Amino acid sequence: MSQIHLEIRIKPRPGLLNPEGKAIHHALQSLGWDGVDDARVGKVVYLDLDAPSESDAIEAAHAMCRKFLANPVTEDFEVSVVGKTADA
Amino acid sequence: MSQIHLEIRIKPRPGLLNPEGKAIHHALQSLGWDGVDDARVGKVVYLDLDAPSESDAIEAAHAMCRKFLANPVTEDFEVSVVGKTADA
Repeated sequence: MSQIHLEIRIKPRPGLLNPEGKAIHHALQSLGWDGVDDARVGKVVYLDLDAPSESDAIEAAHAMCRKFLANPVTEDFEVSVVGKTADA
Repeated sequence: MSQIHLEIRIKPRPGLLNPEGKAIHHALQSLGWDGVDDARVGKVVYLDLDAPSESDAIEAAHAMCRKFLANPVTEDFEVSVVGKTADA
């Protein structure tokens, strides 16, 4: 078993309202960044997961997203391995 | 000018309390994923930004993080270019 470090990015689907992104967009414009055309906000979950392999960890993370972490109607998700610690 | 698509990941600094991560960690364990050792939650901002070059866009995003998007005491940030649309 190794400890796999995962980054799970959960983002709002295109076309759906994203009020937090809109607020950030307006705030950035007020601060002078008028080149910003759109801002959307999602969340990112960093998981340390004991798994026999990277592909098992990724599969588990996909299952977590489908079942719990992401809203299947409004959000998409992407999983990346960002590190690995070998257990003794 | 091109439209640069950026992904800005804002994550809690290691060692700081992350109550949302703790809640997710417990929930995943209750759902049977007992291989999870730690969970931390941050946010991810997707920006579409008009900029002369990718490096200008990245520099602007760093300034936005320092000034507004990230908490300099409790959060770290990373900026990646995830796409580019050439303007006519």
